[in-house]
Amino acid sequence: MEKNAAHITIEAFEALCRREANFVEQYGFVTEHIGYGTARARLPFDDAHIRPGGTVSGPAMMALADFAMYALVLGMIGPVPLAVTTSLNVNFLRKPGRADVLAEARILKLGKRLAVGEVNLSSVGSDEPVAHVTATYSIPPPDRRE
Amino acid sequence: MEKNAAHITIEAFEALCRREANFVEQYGFVTEHIGYGTARARLPFDDAHIRPGGTVSGPAMMALADFAMYALVLGMIGPVPLAVTTSLNVNFLRKPGRADVLAEARILKLGKRLAVGEVNLSSVGSDEPVAHVTATYSIPPPDRRE
Amino acid sequence: MEKNAAHITIEAFEALCRREANFVEQYGFVTEHIGYGTARARLPFDDAHIRPGGTVSGPAMMALADFAMYALVLGMIGPVPLAVTTSLNVNFLRKPGRADVLAEARILKLGKRLAVGEVNLSSVGSDEPVAHVTATYSIPPPDRRE
Amino acid sequence: MEKNAAHITIEAFEALCRREANFVEQYGFVTEHIGYGTARARLPFDDAHIRPGGTVSGPAMMALADFAMYALVLGMIGPVPLAVTTSLNVNFLRKPGRADVLAEARILKLGKRLAVGEVNLSSVGSDEPVAHVTATYSIPPPDRRE
Repeated sequence: MEKNAAHITIEAFEALCRREANFVEQYGFVTEHIGYGTARARLPFDDAHIRPGGTVSGPAMMALADFAMYALVLGMIGPVPLAVTTSLNVNFLRKPGRADVLAEARILKLGKRLAVGEVNLSSVGSDEPVAHVTATYSIPPPDRRE
Repeated sequence: MEKNAAHITIEAFEALCRREANFVEQYGFVTEHIGYGTARARLPFDDAHIRPGGTVSGPAMMALADFAMYALVLGMIGPVPLAVTTSLNVNFLRKPGRADVLAEARILKLGKRLAVGEVNLSSVGSDEPVAHVTATYSIPPPDRRE
Repeated sequence: MEKNAAHITIEAFEALCRREANFVEQYGFVTEHIGYGTARARLPFDDAHIRPGGTVSGPAMMALADFAMYALVLGMIGPVPLAVTTSLNVNFLRKPGRADVLAEARILKLGKRLAVGEVNLSSVGSDEPVAHVTATYSIPPPDRRE
Repeated sequence: MEKNAAHITIEAFEALCRREANFVEQYGFVTEHIGYGTARARLPFDDAHIRPGGTVSGPAMMALADFAMYALVLGMIGPVPLAVTTSLNVNFLRKPGRADVLAEARILKLGKRLAVGEVNLSSVGSDEPVAHVTATYSIPPPDRRE
């Protein structure tokens, strides 16, 4: 396998999520891209996720960012379901429109035990970011990955 | 009204959420307490919110913490639906059990424009915290609250 | 050694810092207490640390919080100089007075690889917190602690 | 004045810091660039800032990031000394070398009351980032800027 190829396909990633992570269905996340060090996911607009003011809720955006990070990390270490978020920081920047939200994740540091990434969220049809996230995942040791 | 009484009742808060924040229903959050400077909310355990490993997902816990912060802030400033989260930081500490999750929020600083609070999340039936959150809400000026 | 006794004394901690961490001297930090799961440090007021407005600078408060976390972590794991901060989040709450700043740190979670704590900062002579910090330290594996 | 020109010069910014922010001198920060929406600052390597392990301390890097954010914000709003950090989040990614540290700040959102930016820190002579920071500044209303 090339160094820079993703270590999981979109199909395998989505199958893993369907099997083990019920919360993904609830939001209808779409995995658009998984590379080695980058990933992109989409939250389809749905009235179920609005907050006061008629816009996409903060929790839906945090869930999307966390999901994109999961795709990012598994794209680098392969199918390790027990990789878990240890911390996440979000800054909400602008009201998202009544439109799908895109999350572009990229790796800042892949270590043996921790992976740190950042995620830029934007509203489809706009150039301005709606939120910015940094998050850290803990990677289980090789003997505790199942 | 006493200085230290909550500025919104649980009933009024839940009605506001039902009317304007569809995402609350999706999680089935229960508002247990709103005081002046404190609030407590509960996420009933539900297989819909699990993540790989069989535990409550990070996004469900972040949503609960954000919801408890919203109750906290409206308990201090009254029914201002357009108060919005500007930033949130979460540290995940332990795997929650297969049990309800409780969020205890308390105010750190209520200013004219920003409110900062912290939220301790715990699994019902355990003494150890499962996550710790700090969050900042932006309070709209008096003429832009509807 | 009792389970709940600190694993380092104030004297040993300060000697370690003098030997290896020059930046501590620059601020004149005083270690007031190290327990098992709690620590307290003090930044003496000094005109060298002021920012516009005449108050203690944000960087001085962040440095103090990080120092208190270091005392907290070494109080639990003993003299492991290579324990390092992996992330830190601070909310500044109020202008500190022209007075010493106290940092009270307490542990949220001590794991094998990560320690998470929170630090409350206050101005001596006032009841209100001036800043709130959460931070994560990475603990090196036993064979890489020197 | 052009929309995209910086609203403060490096000379005016450094004079303001010398006059009002003693802590800047302590680190010897150099302001390398201020644009409208970008800024770059440098921490000269100095044995006074090392931590155990012989590398630049976390507090010195946080101070540098906060300083670069201050230059960024004043580059967009002009000489408003009372702009203050309300929150800062840092992820430490790699051990910096024994070399100067560079901080590249860019704006994520400039609002009327808050400015959010991110700062990438790198060690001179290396391509890999050593730390990543997001921070929020509060902008005082026009009648309270002195």
